[in-house]
This record gives sequence, C-alpha cells and structure tokens, in this order.
Amino acid sequence: MTRIQYYVASTLDGFIADEHDDLAWLLQFGMADFSEHYERFFAGVGALVLGATTYEWVLREGGGWPYGSLPTWVLTHRDLPVPDGADIRFVSGDAGAVADAAVVAAAGRNVWVVGGGPVAAQFLEAGRLDEVLVTYMPVALGRGRPLLPVDTVTPPLSLTGVTRLGDSVEHVYRIG
Amino acid sequence: MTRIQYYVASTLDGFIADEHDDLAWLLQFGMADFSEHYERFFAGVGALVLGATTYEWVLREGGGWPYGSLPTWVLTHRDLPVPDGADIRFVSGDAGAVADAAVVAAAGRNVWVVGGGPVAAQFLEAGRLDEVLVTYMPVALGRGRPLLPVDTVTPPLSLTGVTRLGDSVEHVYRIG
Repeated sequence: MTRIQYYVASTLDGFIADEHDDLAWLLQFGMADFSEHYERFFAGVGALVLGATTYEWVLREGGGWPYGSLPTWVLTHRDLPVPDGADIRFVSGDAGAVADAAVVAAAGRNVWVVGGGPVAAQFLEAGRLDEVLVTYMPVALGRGRPLLPVDTVTPPLSLTGVTRLGDSVEHVYRIG
Repeated sequence: MTRIQYYVASTLDGFIADEHDDLAWLLQFGMADFSEHYERFFAGVGALVLGATTYEWVLREGGGWPYGSLPTWVLTHRDLPVPDGADIRFVSGDAGAVADAAVVAAAGRNVWVVGGGPVAAQFLEAGRLDEVLVTYMPVALGRGRPLLPVDTVTPPLSLTGVTRLGDSVEHVYRIG
C-alpha cells in the first residue's frame, strides 16, 4: 500500500533550512547515527517529489544526483537542468495530479516528498499526504524555512513511532 | 543543584502560540496524558520567570493564579495587576540579574522559565538556561509565536530524555 511521506530533518524549533536555504546546522552532525535508518527508509521509496528550491539544493550540494533513476516530479515554473541518468518531470500542476502520477510510478512502493515545507504543506492541504517523518536535530535556529507552513492548523495527527537516533529523535505521524 | 528550565508545549512545527497568542490548538488535548508528568515537574520548581505576554495570558486564562506563592519574576516595562496571594516582582533588568535572584529564591529547587519564547531565548543567549523541556503536540500550526527565537543558531544540545505521552513526545535538552 503506497504511502505519500514527507521525510525530513528539522531543528528542534521547526526549521528545515536557514533563511539562506543553507543546511550547515544539519550537516555538522554527519551521518553516523542516521545512515542505517535512512537506508531502510529509502529502500521503501518508489518515486520522489521536490520543490524547485530543494531540487536546486540537491543538484548543487548533493555531489551528483543521489536518487538514481527513481521517477521524480519537480514542482516548478522554471527551466532547470537534468542530471545524467535521472528521470525527472518538471510540472506546475496541482498536488493532486502529481500525487496520482507519482503513486502509479511508485509501483507499490512509497512516494517521498523530499521538500521543501511549502510542497509538503500543499500535499497535506490537498489531502494527499499520508505520513510526516521528522527527525528533530538538537539545535535551535531561531528563524529560517518552516517545517510545514500550512495555512490553517492541522487536525491532531496520530503518532505512530518515536525513534531516538543519537541526540536526535524521529517522530512518525500518520495523517487522517 | 538548581537548574533554570524552559518547560513548554510546542506544535510539531515549533510554535508555542498562534499569532494572536491563542492556545486553542493546545487546550483541545486536555490534561489526561500530562497531569502526572506536569505535577512531577512542578514539584521541583522553586521560582518562576515569565514575560509580560505570558503573564497576562495566565491571568486571563489561568482561572486564578495557578502558582501559589512561588517567587515570580515578570519581565516587563508595564504596570500589570498582581493576583491575591501571589509573590510577583516586575523587573526590566537583564536576564543575568533575574537569573541570579531567582536561583537564590528557588532555595535549591529549579527555576521555571514559563515563557514566552523571547524570554527563554534571552536566558539561553545570556548563558543562563540549563535545560529545555519541550513537549511536541501532534499538530502543525504553520505560523505563530516561535518556540525559541535565538538570534544565532545554538551549538548542539545534549538530549537527556525522550518521553512519549499519548500522541505527544517530551524532549529534554541539556545546554552546555
């Protein structure tokens, strides 16, 4: 059963990047506490959805496209480069249409909404986000790009998992 | 050994009140999952520190001053009412002087920085906050009053506890 999942790291005060879209606060931690957990998550992913800012960050900082040939949707109104071997669709349509197409392409695995926050919020508000998996890192940033900038408060979500990873904590929330 | 503790409930996206200083998103949950945990925390408290907005919220919504005769510092430049039986000092000084006085008054118990976020951030940046105890509630608000509006990213904090309470999770962070 395919789920649409927003899987993301956040500061303890709810920011996923600083106001310059920088992740130095996150990258300082390295991957030792997270690699195995991430690999288990990623093994379940069959398609990707990213906003333009997140996509450009991955191209710039990712050291090559890290997601192989997974079918990928980038929500953008701009022309953006496509890395060799990647399977990218640029779309400016609504979340519902993207969700429908990505679920089909995922072929029984899950759809990972990589970010940013506005894309995740758009999916949630369209009723097309099934889970939020947020790893809270042990730093506060004070300001930056918000984790989940919904327009109105969400209903209570169901907490289905809590996993400690070093000094970080992953919460898994089920929606609806 | 007295600790200065910021003990607070937050949305999962890092807000402690909505943009009108309203807590409806929090109060919908009731206290069933939290009473015993709160009482254990509060038994360790020997003095309180609040900002003016938080103080006024407690006076307006608290159904009478809920903190008995605990020595209390309110950071304000305004004249504010004092409830019967409460032991309140209005101060406009710096966090360091308030911390010194509150630690003495706490007489071996802890100092609770009740809020808001700017007061906690001021204590943290003055090097006078020992712990952040934040209970993440399972809702996202999208915007509102930030949990910990520091001016610069904090160093990594130490996670010393994770406690699940119903669909909420308390994280305890040690500073320095």
